[in-house]
Amino acid sequence: MPTPFPDDSVGLVEPSLVRFDQPLQLACGRTLDAFELAIETYGTLNADHSNAILICHALSGNHHVAGYHSTEDRKPGWWDSAVGPGKPIDTNRFFVVGLNNLGGCHGSTGPNSPNPETGKPYGPDFPIVTVPDWVESQARLADHLGIRQWAAVIGGSLGGMQALQWAIDHPERLRHCMVIAAAPKLTAQNIAFNEVARQAISRDPQFHAGHYYEQETIPKTGLMLARMVGHITYLSDGGMHEKFGREMRSDALNFDYSPQFEVESYLQYQGERFSTAFDANTYLLMTRALDYFDPAAAFGHSLADALAGTRCGFMVISFTTDWRFSPARSREIVDALVDAGKPVSYAEIDSQQGHDAFLIPSPRYMEVLHAYMRRVAADIPPESPDAR
Amino acid sequence: MPTPFPDDSVGLVEPSLVRFDQPLQLACGRTLDAFELAIETYGTLNADHSNAILICHALSGNHHVAGYHSTEDRKPGWWDSAVGPGKPIDTNRFFVVGLNNLGGCHGSTGPNSPNPETGKPYGPDFPIVTVPDWVESQARLADHLGIRQWAAVIGGSLGGMQALQWAIDHPERLRHCMVIAAAPKLTAQNIAFNEVARQAISRDPQFHAGHYYEQETIPKTGLMLARMVGHITYLSDGGMHEKFGREMRSDALNFDYSPQFEVESYLQYQGERFSTAFDANTYLLMTRALDYFDPAAAFGHSLADALAGTRCGFMVISFTTDWRFSPARSREIVDALVDAGKPVSYAEIDSQQGHDAFLIPSPRYMEVLHAYMRRVAADIPPESPDAR
Repeated sequence: MPTPFPDDSVGLVEPSLVRFDQPLQLACGRTLDAFELAIETYGTLNADHSNAILICHALSGNHHVAGYHSTEDRKPGWWDSAVGPGKPIDTNRFFVVGLNNLGGCHGSTGPNSPNPETGKPYGPDFPIVTVPDWVESQARLADHLGIRQWAAVIGGSLGGMQALQWAIDHPERLRHCMVIAAAPKLTAQNIAFNEVARQAISRDPQFHAGHYYEQETIPKTGLMLARMVGHITYLSDGGMHEKFGREMRSDALNFDYSPQFEVESYLQYQGERFSTAFDANTYLLMTRALDYFDPAAAFGHSLADALAGTRCGFMVISFTTDWRFSPARSREIVDALVDAGKPVSYAEIDSQQGHDAFLIPSPRYMEVLHAYMRRVAADIPPESPDAR
Repeated sequence: MPTPFPDDSVGLVEPSLVRFDQPLQLACGRTLDAFELAIETYGTLNADHSNAILICHALSGNHHVAGYHSTEDRKPGWWDSAVGPGKPIDTNRFFVVGLNNLGGCHGSTGPNSPNPETGKPYGPDFPIVTVPDWVESQARLADHLGIRQWAAVIGGSLGGMQALQWAIDHPERLRHCMVIAAAPKLTAQNIAFNEVARQAISRDPQFHAGHYYEQETIPKTGLMLARMVGHITYLSDGGMHEKFGREMRSDALNFDYSPQFEVESYLQYQGERFSTAFDANTYLLMTRALDYFDPAAAFGHSLADALAGTRCGFMVISFTTDWRFSPARSREIVDALVDAGKPVSYAEIDSQQGHDAFLIPSPRYMEVLHAYMRRVAADIPPESPDAR
């Protein structure tokens, strides 16, 4: 029977839930007594568990990295272009793990999960989770899966920040760290855009101070506006120009406020779609995790000092027209690694796609990924006879 | 009695209302049977009316360009730094005219004015007004003031677009045109930011489809969000970094969504303040006028062709870190003028202030303004003995 999926797809995949019953102390001072993480895995863990890759997701991502959830599923996971048999992150070689972060809204414990103390959704009572908290929860997941050391931890944008934090917090637990389209901390402008998104959500009358679940409503407009603003920052000015220019939906000006330019209907569509698919409290939480990320802060604001204890190889990738986390921000990471005397490769990929480029399989980008992943594969220790 | 105002201030000023009873046909096809414009003037019109300068305002500006409305007034007009005795736009030499544009909310006929047909505010029934419509209404104002030819028409941002349109529509009615921090048309990204603002306003439950006046409410949240987004685009990333960096309001992270970083409280404050001071329907109208501005469209999309009939001298000014209307956009105007064989001077001013730089009296900017205004003054024809 022919498979309905492309040959280089991981095919049909199924998420699973992993429960953790050891209390997790968070950076904010609060403790989660128990939590669950939704995960997906692709490929086969080798006998000595040395071929595992962790993929960390960005603001709105989740555990569904590659493959399809059903034969009717028309859209594969969010990084299907890079993960699969023969693809840069080759599931014939690697055991790939994707998870939904703690605080997420796609299966892991988060604001829309029941608070064991009340039986009702946590809502605004869910604690603020930080990048180091995520890394800690992911380390628990590695323990659960029997992975002592990742062959690589990889992520783009907020995912890249988690990869960087892994290298700092658990130097002995990863051989390679790939940081794509990220930054060592947010700028005032980055924080400002996040704050617009948060104000749009929290001032939506349907937000009900975060308790909208009980009201059986959602702050749809707020989330829509948040996504529209976000979307503009994911695209480059030039990329938007190529995609939309000033194209209009009709020949003549309509002299009203209905969508007239293609870019208006596109943004509205993106915003509307997102507003029913994502949880508002999780959006707040993710943007705050971004704002708070600043691994150098604990090291006298020296990023080189923060990275001094790392023991993995680094690959840093940026995209020329990314203005959310510009190449200059990636070079800050590279410079700090060089200052700290750490092995680092850097690629600045020519692209018109802005920040979104990290999700788009452009040829040069895929070549760079492929090449580095061959090094990651070469560093997998030969399996001991015992382990076979 | 000592004056309470600085020596180089135009001092106490008073706005006046000018009524026009000839119908004005608008680009949208509709007609305003009558309208009023709020204006202010500074300096003295010379005998042959040849020393008049028109200052066109940007999105949220108005007729109050310089001076003070009372002795208690702590804030002068929006371009007081450039307009006054001895200042670059020298009121000892020039008769300076500022107006609130048609559709505005500071005294001129606009959405919050009574619709003569109903006696209630126009609200959403006020027609969309375009840049060419404004120029037409300003030409009526010139007629009213007895000004056959402006010594110069000057504007920044949306105001610069009006200046450019003047040169195209009424080539014989201005000797100089100064276009500051503007663009020949908006990009998809510019339109996208405007659309976020419009969605924020029009989806605010207090908007009532534009009829909020009758409900005795205002779409405060929508306007606040619109202004916050706008404000980010007025500042540069670097300027924001200099002003706020990642400075926090307290030493420790607060682990909630209350304002934690200085940039958050600044933006909220700016947004809140604006939301009670500006009319939402006018904001929609102004952003649409920006979207629609495209003087080249009627000339086969050739800006050089659009400018071929102009007869004035041009001064184009841009600011290095302006990413709303970048120097590249100003150079498009300069290149088109050069292609059309027109006299043009161009200055790109080094500044950290982004788009806002056009309102800030930095030394080099003021020097350039001063120098060009001396040329404008030199081109004032010697007064005829008759006129004396």
